Amino acid sequence: MDTVVDALRAVLPPLAVATDAETLARHSHDDAEWAPYGLPAAVVFASRVDDVVATVRIAAERGVPVVPRGAGTGLSGGANATSGCLVLSLERMTRIVEVDAAERYAVVEAGVLNDDLRRHVAGHGLWYPPDPASQAISTIGGNVATNAGGICCVKYGVTRDYVLGMTVVLADGSIAKLGRTTAKGVTGYDLTGLLVGSEGTLAIIVDVTVRLLPLGGRQERAVVGYFRTLTDAGAAVAAVTRAGIVPSALELIDRTCLHAVAQWQGWDLPEEANALLLAKVDEPGERGEELAAALAGLFRDAGGDRVERAADPAEIDRLFAARRLAYPALERLGPVLTEDVCVPRRAVPEMLARIEAVAAEAGVVIANIAHAGDGNLHPLIIAPEGDDEAKARAKVAFDRIVDACRSLGGTVTGEHGVGLLKLPGAAAELSPVVRGLHRAVKHALDPAGILNPGKAFPDGESDALDPR
Amino acid sequence: MDTVVDALRAVLPPLAVATDAETLARHSHDDAEWAPYGLPAAVVFASRVDDVVATVRIAAERGVPVVPRGAGTGLSGGANATSGCLVLSLERMTRIVEVDAAERYAVVEAGVLNDDLRRHVAGHGLWYPPDPASQAISTIGGNVATNAGGICCVKYGVTRDYVLGMTVVLADGSIAKLGRTTAKGVTGYDLTGLLVGSEGTLAIIVDVTVRLLPLGGRQERAVVGYFRTLTDAGAAVAAVTRAGIVPSALELIDRTCLHAVAQWQGWDLPEEANALLLAKVDEPGERGEELAAALAGLFRDAGGDRVERAADPAEIDRLFAARRLAYPALERLGPVLTEDVCVPRRAVPEMLARIEAVAAEAGVVIANIAHAGDGNLHPLIIAPEGDDEAKARAKVAFDRIVDACRSLGGTVTGEHGVGLLKLPGAAAELSPVVRGLHRAVKHALDPAGILNPGKAFPDGESDALDPR
Repeated sequence: MDTVVDALRAVLPPLAVATDAETLARHSHDDAEWAPYGLPAAVVFASRVDDVVATVRIAAERGVPVVPRGAGTGLSGGANATSGCLVLSLERMTRIVEVDAAERYAVVEAGVLNDDLRRHVAGHGLWYPPDPASQAISTIGGNVATNAGGICCVKYGVTRDYVLGMTVVLADGSIAKLGRTTAKGVTGYDLTGLLVGSEGTLAIIVDVTVRLLPLGGRQERAVVGYFRTLTDAGAAVAAVTRAGIVPSALELIDRTCLHAVAQWQGWDLPEEANALLLAKVDEPGERGEELAAALAGLFRDAGGDRVERAADPAEIDRLFAARRLAYPALERLGPVLTEDVCVPRRAVPEMLARIEAVAAEAGVVIANIAHAGDGNLHPLIIAPEGDDEAKARAKVAFDRIVDACRSLGGTVTGEHGVGLLKLPGAAAELSPVVRGLHRAVKHALDPAGILNPGKAFPDGESDALDPR
Repeated sequence: MDTVVDALRAVLPPLAVATDAETLARHSHDDAEWAPYGLPAAVVFASRVDDVVATVRIAAERGVPVVPRGAGTGLSGGANATSGCLVLSLERMTRIVEVDAAERYAVVEAGVLNDDLRRHVAGHGLWYPPDPASQAISTIGGNVATNAGGICCVKYGVTRDYVLGMTVVLADGSIAKLGRTTAKGVTGYDLTGLLVGSEGTLAIIVDVTVRLLPLGGRQERAVVGYFRTLTDAGAAVAAVTRAGIVPSALELIDRTCLHAVAQWQGWDLPEEANALLLAKVDEPGERGEELAAALAGLFRDAGGDRVERAADPAEIDRLFAARRLAYPALERLGPVLTEDVCVPRRAVPEMLARIEAVAAEAGVVIANIAHAGDGNLHPLIIAPEGDDEAKARAKVAFDRIVDACRSLGGTVTGEHGVGLLKLPGAAAELSPVVRGLHRAVKHALDPAGILNPGKAFPDGESDALDPR
């Protein structure tokens, strides 16, 4: 029998199938530090739906796993190769198929970059809100497969809230069109919603119909302030919620992060600056002014120092510079293992305090960026390059943070997905009955288990509803 | 062997199991005119989760279908009994378990009325947006099972957008807690989302965690205007979209409906009033004034007559009276078969014209209420009481409206659900592959097919992914 690579080459366009060492290496994992991965048998670059169908059919015939992949910017190992699998890259499927300005939707292929979609629909007076930090380099297919979040979620929701429909290739190679283009619709089960966040384990997303908002009618204003304690910053966040204000961004940067940026950039920080809160509102006119003034007042009342406001885009950028520079400032210190726990908003100060304790115990540096308005924290665990002991301690810290999050009523992943890194956390979070439901759904859509096996949910033992 | 009723009585509280003719009759169908139904073996009134578990276990052991039910206000036959089934009513499960104002969510049992939830959370300064017309009498469980819409969807989305999690009883009687209480979370598949709109065919919803918004910060203003032609009204709706305005209501009432109300109430209509558009915006202050003025201008530019604005709640009520009185005005003319098609917004005038043609051809009266801003139309087909020939013609009209909607790129149900009435329409809308996916998911969660069999999707033949 010919090899799976021969079979692929026989039906796919030339240059669609790569097996050279460099390509295999580059496509064998995503951006999750330290998640395990194997070497794929080949990387297939699909340019059209038929390429995906052909690849899945060949894989299904031979029982070879298929690991679908966008730009590989994931932070949980969801796109990591298993040994001998086919990595199926959608990054060449970059067509913007349709923009309907009257109905406010767009149909785009999976490989379109988030920013390219954003720019394109802006030309039609429309706005695609979901804004993961990777927006310049991540694909819509990957955003949908992981239900990516971002900064504006606190007001505008996550990727799921903007997906009306999609075309998928199923585990047997058949094509299913799911969802709708109308504003509402309840015909049958919400399979579109089921596929969002399923990390390529149920079907392969080849195009997506996204809902859009009008571009106009918003006007950004920023409010930032330093705080002496995490508790003060937490009190400011709680006061914003209590006041019924829904900001379009509400971010927190902790001391470690702040000092890394300040040191790099030569900034002068206020004394005892232990947290920075960065907020935006986007209501236009007088109302926006009112809300920005109210936020600034709440920040000051909670003990905020150097509270500043800006309405000019360049000034807003300046005030948000610390947020933008935080990640690169930390990457200068070594490889960063990114956590993604989400706790009740009120538990953010307590969670940050526990993370501080974990860092001290484990002897690692942990800096925090948090979507404070959502309770979604990104502890960034840093271990110097090549220091294997530090790496081992970082892994311990990672697990302890997950435990602390669970004990505060949180969820182990707010927006990055389970992938591989969060499998143990998900096993703790999901009951045996719920894990059984996951297995039943997975088995229903992918009976042979060839689609991204081992990702997205802990496939452990369970008594409930197990079809096997 | 004892009967299923004996078995239920042995384990459930006294008064939980009813078999008297009146109770059986009253609980054998929902509000869908003319959808078929059978006589249940018993109606079980659950007061707690354990009652649901006990009922499902007994039903599962004996292979007796269970038809779950809230208040029975559905309009598609989704809660209609099959002969010999157990109707499982959740209407006695009316506890509001928890309201968390800081995190903005509430946990409520399935039988809580939409308005009761709304009133209760208002006491905490919070708002539950989904507002189906039945809100005074329908339950949250039913709203979630059908993914109910309403008037404010055009800005605030549908029930799905407010469901964070739920507790369900599965087909084997086990209990699963799905979802989360945190603002974000992507641990595992979105089974919560899958259950929303599944019409009791995958599991029985016993409680729901709903996301809430701040109650304050909104200020309603209404704008209404009469139009000489549907095309003019349609042009006004399109102009609103083009202007990037997202109103919090955008309703249309057609001539038949308008004249029924005017005749009943003794109103004087403008000459050639063939449509009434009713809009609301809810931005506070100056911005709301601006938007209301802009809407009024767009209505006038499109040929609107007697365009009026109101900012006072009593005045808003007066302007919206025609919307409120439309359904009762039509019910005076005979039983109303309610359609629920959803087309692209721009196709609303064309769809209304086609409905007019269908009415003329079939010789029945059809009046229209439309959520014009969503493209979701409710043609109300009226056949005089006891006129079987008219009833037959009404059914023909129903099917033709579904066909017309499909040919305009629409979906056969915007917010009422498939139930029984929309099974043929859903069969036309969903491809064989997608129907196969539905069967696979249904089989995964309810292998014996005891949960509300025959509802929600057309369980016809299909080649794809069929586990049977």
